[in-house]
Amino acid sequence: MAAITIFGKGNMGQAIGDVFQQGGNQVSFIDSGDPVENLGSIVVLAVPYNAALSIAKANQAALAGKVVVDITNPLNFDTWDELVVPADSSAAAQIAALLPDSKVVKAFNTTFAATLQSRKVSDQAQTTVMAAGDDDAAKQELADALTDSGVAFVDAGALKRARELESFGFLQMTLAAKETLGWTGGFAVLK
Amino acid sequence: MAAITIFGKGNMGQAIGDVFQQGGNQVSFIDSGDPVENLGSIVVLAVPYNAALSIAKANQAALAGKVVVDITNPLNFDTWDELVVPADSSAAAQIAALLPDSKVVKAFNTTFAATLQSRKVSDQAQTTVMAAGDDDAAKQELADALTDSGVAFVDAGALKRARELESFGFLQMTLAAKETLGWTGGFAVLK
Repeated sequence: MAAITIFGKGNMGQAIGDVFQQGGNQVSFIDSGDPVENLGSIVVLAVPYNAALSIAKANQAALAGKVVVDITNPLNFDTWDELVVPADSSAAAQIAALLPDSKVVKAFNTTFAATLQSRKVSDQAQTTVMAAGDDDAAKQELADALTDSGVAFVDAGALKRARELESFGFLQMTLAAKETLGWTGGFAVLK
Repeated sequence: MAAITIFGKGNMGQAIGDVFQQGGNQVSFIDSGDPVENLGSIVVLAVPYNAALSIAKANQAALAGKVVVDITNPLNFDTWDELVVPADSSAAAQIAALLPDSKVVKAFNTTFAATLQSRKVSDQAQTTVMAAGDDDAAKQELADALTDSGVAFVDAGALKRARELESFGFLQMTLAAKETLGWTGGFAVLK
């Protein structure tokens, strides 16, 4: 059982909260304008990329020692044709640079809100959360919190792999936006 | 029915040949050292990255007008921690630059040989070939050749998306190499 604080109550924040609640964790939310206090050991930034950067910058002390989960897909939403982060970096790397005393993990950016809610990709496969980060204990803490949640967990490697997870999320979103895939479908992780 | 020439008779070349044969196409192979002649309208470079570059450089005239399919995953196989192509480019973009008179399509780099052979990812989902390219007619020709092949086809967008397909293939290979996923599994595309 972990105490988990989620910044953001949008579709993703709510779906992630639901998953963690089923996992037996204590979940609280911080919405825009709420005081940043009583943070759990795992903090999920379930907000858009720019907001995640702002939260990181403004709360370095409060987030020190925490497992900070970056879920963003930093698309250029004007063009839907590129990411706004440098090609050799990632949103997660940028957030980690802003939070040197936190344990930053990239996760939940490869799952649509609907597939988290249903725990299924296209009714065919269990939803899997892929996570990348440099702190193995932090990834294990996240994996443990998801054990009974209904979604599977895969360790995708070091934080450097966030770049590939963000490419994966980007490609999946472009295919859903073109209706090649549904927002209830996508890329399933099959062992 | 298309005439398809495959450079390379390794695991991937053979699996791709099998898929196209089931699709009712006429398949021929060119192995290392064979003369480059009688090329079909679709030419698949089922060879490692450096060999694909060499074939492209040496056969610009022969490949002119052809649909040239790049299947490579340009990993640094010493480190398994990065791609050897520039972060803002792709192997497919490099091959396209060498072949200005060909229609280069990125495809088959997101499917392992075993999932092409079985047409299934982890016995759970149909295998899907994702393709990126700037010539819609070339992608349609590839899709048509795969219609009865037992694998599904998804248009992943412009050749620029080859970068994301290569990230996808890279991530999938790192997870299989770590035995997080099996080489008969991987990322399935579910609509």
